[in-house]
Amino acid sequence: MPYFDAASAAPLHPVAREALLASLDEGWVDPARLYREGRRARLLLDAAREAAAEAVGCRPDELVFTPSGTQAVHRAVAGAVAARRRTGRHLVHSAVEHSSVLHAAEAHEAAGGSADPGGTRTEVAVDRTGRVAAEEFAAALRPDTALACLQSANHEVGTEQPVPEVAEACREAGVPLLVDAAQSLAWGPVEGPWSLLAASAHKWGGPPGVGLLAVRKGTRFSPQGPADERESGRVPGFENIPAIVAAAASLRAVRAGAADEAARLRGLVDRVRTRVPELVPDVEVVGDPVRRLPHLVTFSCLYVDGETLLHELDREGFSVSSGSSCTSSTLTPSHVLRAMGVLSEGNVRVSLPVGTTDADVDRFLEVLPGAVRRVREQLGAPTDALEADASPAPEPGLVLDALGKRCPLPVIELAKAIDGVPLGSTITVLADDEAARLDIPAWCAMRGHEYVGEHAAERGAGYVVRRVG
Amino acid sequence: MPYFDAASAAPLHPVAREALLASLDEGWVDPARLYREGRRARLLLDAAREAAAEAVGCRPDELVFTPSGTQAVHRAVAGAVAARRRTGRHLVHSAVEHSSVLHAAEAHEAAGGSADPGGTRTEVAVDRTGRVAAEEFAAALRPDTALACLQSANHEVGTEQPVPEVAEACREAGVPLLVDAAQSLAWGPVEGPWSLLAASAHKWGGPPGVGLLAVRKGTRFSPQGPADERESGRVPGFENIPAIVAAAASLRAVRAGAADEAARLRGLVDRVRTRVPELVPDVEVVGDPVRRLPHLVTFSCLYVDGETLLHELDREGFSVSSGSSCTSSTLTPSHVLRAMGVLSEGNVRVSLPVGTTDADVDRFLEVLPGAVRRVREQLGAPTDALEADASPAPEPGLVLDALGKRCPLPVIELAKAIDGVPLGSTITVLADDEAARLDIPAWCAMRGHEYVGEHAAERGAGYVVRRVG
Repeated sequence: MPYFDAASAAPLHPVAREALLASLDEGWVDPARLYREGRRARLLLDAAREAAAEAVGCRPDELVFTPSGTQAVHRAVAGAVAARRRTGRHLVHSAVEHSSVLHAAEAHEAAGGSADPGGTRTEVAVDRTGRVAAEEFAAALRPDTALACLQSANHEVGTEQPVPEVAEACREAGVPLLVDAAQSLAWGPVEGPWSLLAASAHKWGGPPGVGLLAVRKGTRFSPQGPADERESGRVPGFENIPAIVAAAASLRAVRAGAADEAARLRGLVDRVRTRVPELVPDVEVVGDPVRRLPHLVTFSCLYVDGETLLHELDREGFSVSSGSSCTSSTLTPSHVLRAMGVLSEGNVRVSLPVGTTDADVDRFLEVLPGAVRRVREQLGAPTDALEADASPAPEPGLVLDALGKRCPLPVIELAKAIDGVPLGSTITVLADDEAARLDIPAWCAMRGHEYVGEHAAERGAGYVVRRVG
Repeated sequence: MPYFDAASAAPLHPVAREALLASLDEGWVDPARLYREGRRARLLLDAAREAAAEAVGCRPDELVFTPSGTQAVHRAVAGAVAARRRTGRHLVHSAVEHSSVLHAAEAHEAAGGSADPGGTRTEVAVDRTGRVAAEEFAAALRPDTALACLQSANHEVGTEQPVPEVAEACREAGVPLLVDAAQSLAWGPVEGPWSLLAASAHKWGGPPGVGLLAVRKGTRFSPQGPADERESGRVPGFENIPAIVAAAASLRAVRAGAADEAARLRGLVDRVRTRVPELVPDVEVVGDPVRRLPHLVTFSCLYVDGETLLHELDREGFSVSSGSSCTSSTLTPSHVLRAMGVLSEGNVRVSLPVGTTDADVDRFLEVLPGAVRRVREQLGAPTDALEADASPAPEPGLVLDALGKRCPLPVIELAKAIDGVPLGSTITVLADDEAARLDIPAWCAMRGHEYVGEHAAERGAGYVVRRVG
């Protein structure tokens, strides 16, 4: 059963399993205790810290273990910002950071009492591949910037960020840079003079329950929240030593084979990137085709409901994820796809775990076209033939009421209606589904029509499209 | 090798180990995902929540899992206090709470900006057994009390607190009560109308990495810190499902045998309570002799250095802990022993894990007297014979300079000097070790001398003792 959602959680690496089992008998003890069992537990913890620090490229005393990558990010932001309170309370981050960074940034912004203005922040935009421009990021740094945050690579589309250049710019500006390395740490250390780094073990095949936070010497840091003596006072709570040992051992194991495995998976991802648009009509493959994670590829399918497609693929035995609005609890498309300005409907993220075979990927390419076709048929989406049909012409006034209809229905109705629009004339789609704002312009770009713009409406918005082709 | 520090961390229960292994293959997946593996992980998590809630005595939707008991307490205090900000910012807790509660209370007190007065708190004193009086606790509740905190049983001396009575008083006052049930949850649910409850799996033989937090319906609660969707928005970060499953399974297993095992361990603890003072001279057994945890007993040995005694016992194969000042990084005696006003030097906490045998306890009783004797000899402590000796009389003025000397030396020197003090006269011990404040009065009580009081000195303090016997 091919599981293609490694970017969400990677299957437990055999070395992680083995290390976890081997340390269960000694790892439950309090490593702060002076007796024999405590000293042994401390040795396990110290050895794990050394191994993890080596993989990160920092000193062991710069690295602490947290209970998750999310908590590593939350504590990193809170501790770094608090330590630089006198400098200012401005935060810079890219528009495509992981939700843990965005939530920490929102909490920073909301913080402060009546006499305290709270934090401010600048979100640096990305291009259509999901990448920030290093110069643009550098230009957002201000004298009152307390912290900058940039992921090493994007978790939804795989695009690598220019971390070394941005880290250099931050160093020059005297601003600490926090790198969220959750998606890339398995493949290699993060280059450049970053100040803080966060990661998550279950992304590299380590067990759940372990994140790591590195704070390089010379970086000011004031842990927030109640005091606790453990992990250099940076992470409260009893250490989960068996999981920590397993996390460190598996990171080392994954790294040992990283170069070869990356090259192999890169080949498989290239195959997906090339073949999917050939096999499935009306697909947009997103993310940088070259500067990207080796194991991750994302594409979106016009006229497709993401959740239904996930179920179809699940029935065929493939586990993937989606940034479509229908798969989100808030019914909005992923903030990453929005920031990139790309199609969000029928979105599929394929992230291959270590060891994925050629046959797995080939079978995925076999079943995908049928799965997409079935979803389109269920939705009554236009096929090439259908689109050529003379659909019932829209009423004079050329307004298509798609209010109350969820993604991808507004785009499907637009596609059916467009043939009834005289060449050079416009049609206005009324829609109140958030995905329409992203997907109607994306559809225009894919189909060669002109997207004129959006105007406010009594409910939702009107999206104006001019028929060109 | 008998490990007698279960109150710090209990050995991993076989059921915990088994459940952990059984859920490793499915428990690494994101339970929020819609595909098959995600749904299976969600089922594991839901089942664990049901089992844990049943053991706690709450509804499954009232219970969330945290990465540690410490984080359960920290989040409980922060969330409960924030939700009642309009009522007031006053906190009530006992003087003998676990450090996680005290640290959360300190953070609450320190919070607030220039226009914000921060929190206030009332620490409710305990008697010499370590117990609060329910009426006294109730009297500390005020109209602006946001939260009250009381442990179910003390982690250092085992004394049970009157939680049902206090919970009733809190209910009447409309104040939520947070119960830290870390030490008692293995033995049974906490009775009474408490509002919040925190516990830690590694205290009952579950794995490290799991705490639990129950917030009963109707209790106002505002999670603090960055938002996150997991665990009802109360605990950010990816769930550690294998550990959670192991925690729930082992809690159920421990509870199944709890009544019998508690009775058996209670007998072993009674044996320690009775025999230690018979076998070792100058020992004070502390904590309530009846209303106490079944598996925990604490005693202190006059003229003994706690750290050295721990090492002696470790050499004999026994792992115990100590609240003596010499075993603390701050060189102060445990806040619990201080609040009780009992002897702190040579402090030993014995907490028996499930399955401890009679033979283990008997061997402990065999080796303890020799270990204490060796430590006393190393320190040149007075033995019965030595004490009877005419020690060199102190200089006229009867001041004993023990400045710069660490516990237990000031008490040892006092014991040697007392014979040179005329009956009815006083001697003043100058000492700057924090433990002296506790241990000199305790020594007087044990020896039948009168403790007159303490006065300030240029360095440290002067402790005045009148020779009576």
